[in-house]
Amino acid sequence: MTNWSDRHRREGHLISFVPTMGFLHEGHLSLMKEAKRLGDKLVISLFVNPTQFGPGEGFDAYPSDLDRDLKLAREIGVDVAFTPNKADFYPQGFDTFIDQEKLPNHLCGLSRSGHFRGVMTIVAKLFNVVNPAISVFGEKDFQQLAIIRRMVKDLNFHIRIIGHPTMREADGLAMSSRNSKLTPDQRITGLCLIKSMEKAQNRLKNKETNAATLIKGAAEFICSHPDTKIDYIKICDPDTLEDVAEIDRPVLMAMAVNVGTTRLIDNMILNEETNDAA
Amino acid sequence: MTNWSDRHRREGHLISFVPTMGFLHEGHLSLMKEAKRLGDKLVISLFVNPTQFGPGEGFDAYPSDLDRDLKLAREIGVDVAFTPNKADFYPQGFDTFIDQEKLPNHLCGLSRSGHFRGVMTIVAKLFNVVNPAISVFGEKDFQQLAIIRRMVKDLNFHIRIIGHPTMREADGLAMSSRNSKLTPDQRITGLCLIKSMEKAQNRLKNKETNAATLIKGAAEFICSHPDTKIDYIKICDPDTLEDVAEIDRPVLMAMAVNVGTTRLIDNMILNEETNDAA
Repeated sequence: MTNWSDRHRREGHLISFVPTMGFLHEGHLSLMKEAKRLGDKLVISLFVNPTQFGPGEGFDAYPSDLDRDLKLAREIGVDVAFTPNKADFYPQGFDTFIDQEKLPNHLCGLSRSGHFRGVMTIVAKLFNVVNPAISVFGEKDFQQLAIIRRMVKDLNFHIRIIGHPTMREADGLAMSSRNSKLTPDQRITGLCLIKSMEKAQNRLKNKETNAATLIKGAAEFICSHPDTKIDYIKICDPDTLEDVAEIDRPVLMAMAVNVGTTRLIDNMILNEETNDAA
Repeated sequence: MTNWSDRHRREGHLISFVPTMGFLHEGHLSLMKEAKRLGDKLVISLFVNPTQFGPGEGFDAYPSDLDRDLKLAREIGVDVAFTPNKADFYPQGFDTFIDQEKLPNHLCGLSRSGHFRGVMTIVAKLFNVVNPAISVFGEKDFQQLAIIRRMVKDLNFHIRIIGHPTMREADGLAMSSRNSKLTPDQRITGLCLIKSMEKAQNRLKNKETNAATLIKGAAEFICSHPDTKIDYIKICDPDTLEDVAEIDRPVLMAMAVNVGTTRLIDNMILNEETNDAA
């Protein structure tokens, strides 16, 4: 992989990169199309990274369909689909991790101890192997994007990080590999995440700038749906992810909700001035 | 710095790199000469890294003489002496660190909490900026060398790490910037580190293979000198740094001793077969 990248960089190509855990859906494909537009050689990785799963977080059950993934990648025009071997990538005695103290201690990081440490470590490894000029990440995983941006800046990776808007089904549900686990009823219930944020956006436009009030409204709306359990609903600064009490600038509204046994996340930038979703 | 490296890599040059905290002595110069021999463009860095100093570990008092360092570098034939700016290198909100769980919890790491976390982080940053093919580290800081090797392997840096033997004064004292702080009497006392290891090597040749016995002998010898305080004396596996009880293969003997207020470290590979120092 590195030899391929070195050769193409020497020839003046701009390599763009999209890391994935495979089982590609339209969300991944939109990141790949954006990466292809921004660079002139496109590399993706397909690797279910064990170090970002905690106990019981479903590493063993993570869905996989390599043939289908490769077919989709070929249709998009991916130049290399990199599929590292787990034993090569985490050799005997592996013991080096990348971590942050601040950004992981918000939102999903609070209920997924060690998750972002695993994400940073695998992304840094992939960056070192693939050596891209550009890498594209979805805004669906907003905290992950913020953490990767911070890591790239702090560790002097010379890689342009691009955030790409969340892809949604026709009815608004944020695309996710996990959606396939929802029953038909749960699939409809899943819409309560985006709907609760649209309601908050509308109330903000009508001058309700108190974050606690908007969060309470969203929580009540979500809890009115069957089979839902809120992990968190937050309104926070998009850079630091620290809570905002009074909304006087664009803020991130982010939530994680269990629908049945499936954990869904979604987020939106709330803005008093416009109605644009993140 | 990165543009310079990219250009020379594209032209097919092999860039070698020696990171230093400046105040260069013969030990540094020998690393630089070795790096020059191995590559065809030589980069050094001069940067006193704040994140590897604990409270009271002398960051503010670290000696510096940039003019002299640059003159010495020029004489060696250094192509670039890279002197990062502290505010650029640790920007506002810096929060990303690289760490290991095993190797730092031995030898110097035990009494210098966070030291190797700071070392790994700055070395990874410098690797990303300088992008060398080869980097040379002294075996004087044996634990640092082992940690960097592990980091490079684990995080997939494509850099060949070279360990270079410890440079010594004519009488055997390991070279160090700290030696300049010793009084003339302490300077003589400082020789007890290397002498105690040479004694252990001789006893091992005479079939004393019990590590505790050799350590006890070294400790008694060192304590017979005025103004000495042992931090640690260890006999351990050179790769894992874990204690060895019975010596049946080459082992690392490593020690840290305070002479007055100056902390000296030294190490040697002990081998039953030969008398070669590390």
